[in-house]
Amino acid sequence: MEQASQRAILAAQPIEWTRSGVVVLDQRQLPEHEVRNTYTDYKHVARAIRDMEIRGAPAIGVAAAMGAAIGVQRSLARTLDELRAEFETICAELAATRPTAVDLFWAISRMRAVFVQACQAALVRSALAPSLDDIRSAMVHEAQLVHREKREHDLAIGCHGASLLPRSGRVMTQCNAGALATAGIGTALGVIRMAVFEGHDLEVFVPETRPYLQGARLTAWELQQAGIPLKLITDNMVGHCLKTEDIAAIVVGADRIAANGDTANKIGTYQMAVLAREHGVAFYVAAPVSTLDLSLPSGDAIPIEERSPEEVTHVRGVRVAPDVPVAHPAFDVTPSQFITAIITERGIARSPYTDSLEKLAGK
Amino acid sequence: MEQASQRAILAAQPIEWTRSGVVVLDQRQLPEHEVRNTYTDYKHVARAIRDMEIRGAPAIGVAAAMGAAIGVQRSLARTLDELRAEFETICAELAATRPTAVDLFWAISRMRAVFVQACQAALVRSALAPSLDDIRSAMVHEAQLVHREKREHDLAIGCHGASLLPRSGRVMTQCNAGALATAGIGTALGVIRMAVFEGHDLEVFVPETRPYLQGARLTAWELQQAGIPLKLITDNMVGHCLKTEDIAAIVVGADRIAANGDTANKIGTYQMAVLAREHGVAFYVAAPVSTLDLSLPSGDAIPIEERSPEEVTHVRGVRVAPDVPVAHPAFDVTPSQFITAIITERGIARSPYTDSLEKLAGK
Repeated sequence: MEQASQRAILAAQPIEWTRSGVVVLDQRQLPEHEVRNTYTDYKHVARAIRDMEIRGAPAIGVAAAMGAAIGVQRSLARTLDELRAEFETICAELAATRPTAVDLFWAISRMRAVFVQACQAALVRSALAPSLDDIRSAMVHEAQLVHREKREHDLAIGCHGASLLPRSGRVMTQCNAGALATAGIGTALGVIRMAVFEGHDLEVFVPETRPYLQGARLTAWELQQAGIPLKLITDNMVGHCLKTEDIAAIVVGADRIAANGDTANKIGTYQMAVLAREHGVAFYVAAPVSTLDLSLPSGDAIPIEERSPEEVTHVRGVRVAPDVPVAHPAFDVTPSQFITAIITERGIARSPYTDSLEKLAGK
Repeated sequence: MEQASQRAILAAQPIEWTRSGVVVLDQRQLPEHEVRNTYTDYKHVARAIRDMEIRGAPAIGVAAAMGAAIGVQRSLARTLDELRAEFETICAELAATRPTAVDLFWAISRMRAVFVQACQAALVRSALAPSLDDIRSAMVHEAQLVHREKREHDLAIGCHGASLLPRSGRVMTQCNAGALATAGIGTALGVIRMAVFEGHDLEVFVPETRPYLQGARLTAWELQQAGIPLKLITDNMVGHCLKTEDIAAIVVGADRIAANGDTANKIGTYQMAVLAREHGVAFYVAAPVSTLDLSLPSGDAIPIEERSPEEVTHVRGVRVAPDVPVAHPAFDVTPSQFITAIITERGIARSPYTDSLEKLAGK
């Protein structure tokens, strides 16, 4: 039991900084193949982000930070000017990978600030021969710090949220808001992992989450690795399971949260929230404070990305529908009145969210 | 326009009685391949039902009737006793194919009644040498009658239901309650087809209906063939589309309807009904009177078929999840309070269903 509980928070990492380079777990090949690639060229890290070898907003942020760091670390530049020019190229290439991911730009701008600072510090130490190695070290240190902060945020979210879950019972999640998405223990899955770590006896219902099947491919794999009992379902079984399977709570992640608590998350989240309320089931959103976008008064202002029809008409390359018109909104917006609480690393926000989220953001 | 409207009720048939045998369109291979198999052995018809080469409650009823007919027609029995014994085997094998579809049992018991009658008639004509050929003819005739009645019922359902749909607008369906499911023009799709035939300008939202993808593979194919505009979505987009796409009505089929109107239908129907009510969208069930099971006071007594986990963990043979526990209820039950009306070939039933359905059944 003790062993099982500890295993719950030992998560396979989607990305790691090692002496040999940036090690990326190729999520496209999960669950069938557990392939890790070691990259020493930032261009390969950029490609890994673009081609969704690594995905999930927080994990993309970590990957961008590590990409910038490895680019500078392995740079052959001999002068500060050369290094500066190369750094701009690195940032531009990383920024061009997933133009909609907010964490990507956040991470790049953080790495740029550290780069500028490190360049200045090196010049202060020696204006004639500034040490490029000091700059390289600063970048590597910062990328590791970004990763550590993500891990700590997840742990804090997990600690805050765990007590909201039943001591014994069934919960449900959506998509993959797990270690694979965050490079920590996960947000929604972090709450579940931490609850199990603290001794809760949980079974997790996992909707497969079409069209990209993050639930079936990634969350099911993560929970299996963590030794947490699960049951895989299709997305249209959610209502039936809420009606018949005595599910105590739903925990999901978030892509963006407006000032009033309206939450954009993977398509399907909204209908789960409606169904949760119909069945009197608690509906929790778990996300870091960085997900809050208090500049948006409500979810109406959140743009919904429309993705490729092929992801709907094909499953892992196999055609499942004739060539017909397709709708493919990648996200939906859950109005805050359906959300029981929002769990962040700084604490738990409840309705009225305009007040509670503002307080958390200001902490 | 006129041409387009007529095309709306010209439907590809999933099963046909021919001189060469029972011709079954292999729906498992749609939409990629349009393969028809001719069966002269009832065991092959039973297998076609069990393996979902043909599916959909009314079509299963037609298939069972044709299976019983071809079994008797091609029987090598030389005496009435031999034929009777063989008929019992035929019925038992056909009845063991799919547990939830009430049409299967209805069709078998109808064929049994005709068989018994035909045996008696043959004995009346000649007690010493009853003509087995007369019995064979009676069975073939009855199977064809069952098929014709289904077609007529669909047309009547379509006529009754068409006026419930908007003159111009969007509707949604679930799974495939179309020609492929009924061997007519369909029940839910029959209503939509008939409305378009009568000049309504409709666009149909089609959830793919995992795990078996009847929406993506069959309904999308049927509507495309019929020239009716459609949009394919995944099952987790239903709530988002009801919220954002101005959908006027949902029409679904039924596998079994209890005396109080509770309706068993393809998994996912229940949550669509809950979401429809949340969004003030009319939710219609279209089904023949034979789907009514007035012996059941409510839906609680309807058995739910649990199908193979592989249909969830694999999509068309491709693995999409690790080897984990799976729930796979093939159907769910929608309580009648979520149902705006039930459209049958004898008219439209509305709440209180215990009265209205009893009246329709007694007609």
